[in-house]
Amino acid sequence: MKEPARLNPTVIALFASIIGASLLAQDIPLPAPEISGRMPLMEALAKRSTVREFDSRELSPRHLSGLLWACFGVNRSDGKRTAPSTKNSQETDIYVILKQGAYVYDAKANKLNLVLLEDLRGLAATQPFATNAPVTLLFIVDLSKMEKGNTAENNAYANIDVGYISQNAYLFCASEGLVTGARASFDAKALGPKLRLRPDQRIVLAQSVGYPVPGANPK
Amino acid sequence: MKEPARLNPTVIALFASIIGASLLAQDIPLPAPEISGRMPLMEALAKRSTVREFDSRELSPRHLSGLLWACFGVNRSDGKRTAPSTKNSQETDIYVILKQGAYVYDAKANKLNLVLLEDLRGLAATQPFATNAPVTLLFIVDLSKMEKGNTAENNAYANIDVGYISQNAYLFCASEGLVTGARASFDAKALGPKLRLRPDQRIVLAQSVGYPVPGANPK
Repeated sequence: MKEPARLNPTVIALFASIIGASLLAQDIPLPAPEISGRMPLMEALAKRSTVREFDSRELSPRHLSGLLWACFGVNRSDGKRTAPSTKNSQETDIYVILKQGAYVYDAKANKLNLVLLEDLRGLAATQPFATNAPVTLLFIVDLSKMEKGNTAENNAYANIDVGYISQNAYLFCASEGLVTGARASFDAKALGPKLRLRPDQRIVLAQSVGYPVPGANPK
Repeated sequence: MKEPARLNPTVIALFASIIGASLLAQDIPLPAPEISGRMPLMEALAKRSTVREFDSRELSPRHLSGLLWACFGVNRSDGKRTAPSTKNSQETDIYVILKQGAYVYDAKANKLNLVLLEDLRGLAATQPFATNAPVTLLFIVDLSKMEKGNTAENNAYANIDVGYISQNAYLFCASEGLVTGARASFDAKALGPKLRLRPDQRIVLAQSVGYPVPGANPK
């Protein structure tokens, strides 16, 4: 008589690793940002502008990676970033709203961590021109990461810190021929639960990014 | 008998113009900013850091001009700037605190307009490390230039707008081997009357700029 079939431990481990990989596959690894060469800073500053018209084409992984690294990437071995933050609190997270879902930029691992597989672009942009953009960045601060103290002051500093990051997005877009516009028009009330924001998190600013509409005049 | 001596009208006009010129000479014209070439944006982002140690050498006119243009210079024929501002309010003025005096950056004319011939660096920097820096930028917003509305919101947006400008200063310094650090430590109470600030003006942030101390390690 044959023994009852038993799953080989190696097979179990293999299944487990496949299941694990498929869950992790919902995160999006980013290619390494291209740091050398490209447009000089002063020329990017000369081209810096706000645009409110976007082609619907998806952003390439290379552009998405470069954009996020420019915004708030790790630029030193001690974990410091391309933008300063008050007392190095690093209180800002960049939520990346794409057609296929909502993600958080993990600067250290250079990847997007999945939050929700749903198109939230309509909540992240309450002005019609912006819902068409392939990428919306939401700059979300977590006041609990800042030194305890005056809440009004911490809020003010967090706003300045978001400005630092958003300007990096503007300059990256100028340097790569992308178009972008920051705005305060988003549905914070609906986004909070969808993005599972913690009580101390606050959406400060949204910024649409995409390719220019063919034939549109640069501003 | 000779007629009493009378001043020739041409001579009077000449004197008036000399007096006028000598008053205007207290303003500081800036050389045209060098916009082409220099360090790529991504490399400047890679080098972006906060430094709190400055050599006391004065900033060259070329560096001062480039710094201010990078911060909030006019980059389009319609008067728009290298940094965005809420609804194009352009509510931020950059006050430039030098050893010889305090000035306001006039972006359109590319010059520094004299406010006061006095060294205010000790008021613009209440932390000892910063008083040594040859240049302190004070980012001062004028809420009366913004659309009437919710004052708290306008203050929040103005803070973000200052972040945009300050990041440009960080990147220019990174690209030119200058060192810089933004800070909230300044004597607002004493600076207000010295700079003849209007009631709607508010100092948001100070930023020291200078050359690195010889032999200091880059951070």
